[in-house]
Amino acid sequence: MLEPRLKLWVEHRGKAVLGDGRVDLLRAVGETGSLTEAALRMGLSYRRAWGKIRDMERNLGAQLVQSEKGGNTRGSSRLTPRAEALVAQFDRFRKRMENDLGKEFKEVFNA
Amino acid sequence: MLEPRLKLWVEHRGKAVLGDGRVDLLRAVGETGSLTEAALRMGLSYRRAWGKIRDMERNLGAQLVQSEKGGNTRGSSRLTPRAEALVAQFDRFRKRMENDLGKEFKEVFNA
Repeated sequence: MLEPRLKLWVEHRGKAVLGDGRVDLLRAVGETGSLTEAALRMGLSYRRAWGKIRDMERNLGAQLVQSEKGGNTRGSSRLTPRAEALVAQFDRFRKRMENDLGKEFKEVFNA
Repeated sequence: MLEPRLKLWVEHRGKAVLGDGRVDLLRAVGETGSLTEAALRMGLSYRRAWGKIRDMERNLGAQLVQSEKGGNTRGSSRLTPRAEALVAQFDRFRKRMENDLGKEFKEVFNA
């Protein structure tokens, strides 16, 4: 049985800014309020997670994560409104495209 | 300016059988009538082109290319009817999905 597969991403001036892994990382920052926790959840080192976010910010030319150092407590991080909007938009975009994928495949391959 | 990107492929029992490069290789075989010429056009060695086709045939469980040895002349190759149908279907599928990509992106990202 043939099955269609799809990889989706968004570029800014030819550089990748949003894709499945990146959006999941942003979402994890938003949900945990901590870059350390988000990195753990994604199975990334802190350094690598931070590098990915800086890369996205640089390629997009906009801030995505705001971090504060907590006095005695661990620092906290949260998404900027722009990042929240991008995560929500990418999710919608992905769902719609997955839906289209099944529909178009069925029509074209009579599957 | 944000721009959407798409990679599309088709699997059979979890193994890739059709994708941009593979379909272009099949099309080149059909157009040139020669695996040697098709490999050249795709910038692949004969060995590598033949390997890709065998891999597709194995994963799909169907013959895609028929080759004949020509006496004094070079051997000729052509697509099986199944391969011709798959190339045409993948092309249609790709065009439709690229169209959907632009449409959905515009709607979701107000781009």
